[in-house]
Amino acid sequence: MSIKIGILGYGNLGRGIECAVRQNPDMELRAIFTRRPPESVKILGDAPVYHIDDILAHKDEIDLLILCGGSATDLPVQTPEYAKYFSVIDSFDTHAKIPEHFDNVDKAAREGGNIAVISCGWDPGMFSLNRLYASCILPEGKDYTFWGKGVSQGHSDAIRRIEGVLDARQYTIPVDSALEAVRSGKAPELTTREKHLRECFVVAAEDADKARIENEIKTMPNYFADYDTTVHFITMEELKRDHNGIPHGGFVIRSGKTGWEGENTHIIEYSLKLDSNPEFTASVIVACARAAVRMKKEGFTGCKTIFDLPPAYLSVKSPEELRKAML
Amino acid sequence: MSIKIGILGYGNLGRGIECAVRQNPDMELRAIFTRRPPESVKILGDAPVYHIDDILAHKDEIDLLILCGGSATDLPVQTPEYAKYFSVIDSFDTHAKIPEHFDNVDKAAREGGNIAVISCGWDPGMFSLNRLYASCILPEGKDYTFWGKGVSQGHSDAIRRIEGVLDARQYTIPVDSALEAVRSGKAPELTTREKHLRECFVVAAEDADKARIENEIKTMPNYFADYDTTVHFITMEELKRDHNGIPHGGFVIRSGKTGWEGENTHIIEYSLKLDSNPEFTASVIVACARAAVRMKKEGFTGCKTIFDLPPAYLSVKSPEELRKAML
Repeated sequence: MSIKIGILGYGNLGRGIECAVRQNPDMELRAIFTRRPPESVKILGDAPVYHIDDILAHKDEIDLLILCGGSATDLPVQTPEYAKYFSVIDSFDTHAKIPEHFDNVDKAAREGGNIAVISCGWDPGMFSLNRLYASCILPEGKDYTFWGKGVSQGHSDAIRRIEGVLDARQYTIPVDSALEAVRSGKAPELTTREKHLRECFVVAAEDADKARIENEIKTMPNYFADYDTTVHFITMEELKRDHNGIPHGGFVIRSGKTGWEGENTHIIEYSLKLDSNPEFTASVIVACARAAVRMKKEGFTGCKTIFDLPPAYLSVKSPEELRKAML
Repeated sequence: MSIKIGILGYGNLGRGIECAVRQNPDMELRAIFTRRPPESVKILGDAPVYHIDDILAHKDEIDLLILCGGSATDLPVQTPEYAKYFSVIDSFDTHAKIPEHFDNVDKAAREGGNIAVISCGWDPGMFSLNRLYASCILPEGKDYTFWGKGVSQGHSDAIRRIEGVLDARQYTIPVDSALEAVRSGKAPELTTREKHLRECFVVAAEDADKARIENEIKTMPNYFADYDTTVHFITMEELKRDHNGIPHGGFVIRSGKTGWEGENTHIIEYSLKLDSNPEFTASVIVACARAAVRMKKEGFTGCKTIFDLPPAYLSVKSPEELRKAML
């Protein structure tokens, strides 16, 4: 019997979920819920689209609801709210607020007798998992996370808020020499500036003062001031032609020592190179959704993260098949 | 209360376990068991060494017994035998015989009310886990495992069996151009020869026919005939000076497509660069031992693999700490 999936929120991530569900033969997309007028939402496939106000009427049609809202304002409210009625999964990515979000969601999910998986994707998500495994294997070591090359939505938005900017795209780029130093096993101490570069492509209004815009970007606290930042002014046509995608990726590297006197060095590296950040995030979520549904069937309730999901539960294959083909 | 570990078999892997246990503050090494006269076994630390015949007398002193024998003849017998009396973990690595080994160990462990974890290390082990996760996330894709650069014990042994060879070391080396083709996302079909090179360092007897030895190596079926193999004759002094370590490593790479029409490509790569193959294997085993002991405490019995262990169970940290620090 296939796993019946619902999507709440149909932006880039929701669309990615729609695509990912189609790649998994044991799943079917049963409903998309939206805050917009349903008839105004154009989706890729043929699942029914309902207004969010009608969601509880479809409670029994869905095994798991995937929450595709934003971490700033949507998920802190939506995940606890809907965990009362559905097993849910989200990609909440405000690292500092994960403990609080976990507690809220855990309480709601237990009340509802549901499973909730939070903070699923690649960071938090697969990167977290690799930090965890690597630190368990090499307790005497140091780990590093590098992001990019990829588009940072938050940084692009920050540039767009500057007066005279029509549009912008910001790429986060790991510094090659820092990556190489880490891979050498030297366990260097690296500053923010030494780890990543920020490259900005900006479309300015015709009469805008470009020198002022460039200066405002480069001195912006938190976002750019601590980095080596380059700014390129381009036309709207160039932006649309050359910077239309949402690529991302990065590296989790741990180096550590073993031996009676720590005489041997080991490097564990996990890296992602992604054409589409939201589609990859969606693909991780959908695999974890399968695990959540299995845990629910086994009687588990409450909030979980990717750290709690037995790896075999993510797979459509049986344990026997996995041991035979993949171990 | 700390986890009490026993080691059965004190070779390179057993010594690696002794080192790894020392790096984990929640564990202590309580006993080493050996087939040799115990007084002849010189260990690094001060754990007691007992003869294997006395092992059952120490049953209650140990939470988990780590089996450090070989996969060819030791583990197929030892793991089912000792799973009757102890929770156990092994590094059985004959991939084709894993299903049979699993069944034998599962039966014995259930009879004894114990947990057994088999095939733990890096391949099988962490590489298997990465094949599993990557295939769940990107169901429409293809994965590749490359080994090396590293010493292959089996291939080195095969060379040593040739007449006139005094000693030998064989390195398995991944082909750079093949790695690059895989990383490009092109999903190439690669033959055995295209994926790995084999480089051999051979010490020949003074009067040996080197041309014959080289020819016997290069044409040896299964081991070398399907590879581009280079043979270097060196002195015993050079072998001892330059080829004394047991480095290894490798790469697991999956490339896959997402999107409504498979229009986006993603590359997931996991790599290891290890100074000491047995010490790294030991480090993975010790982390998984912690998970096994936790599952045993929760009432689980029978045979497990790394696919069945919830990731958080490998860590000495609490779930709260993990979510706060690593998610």
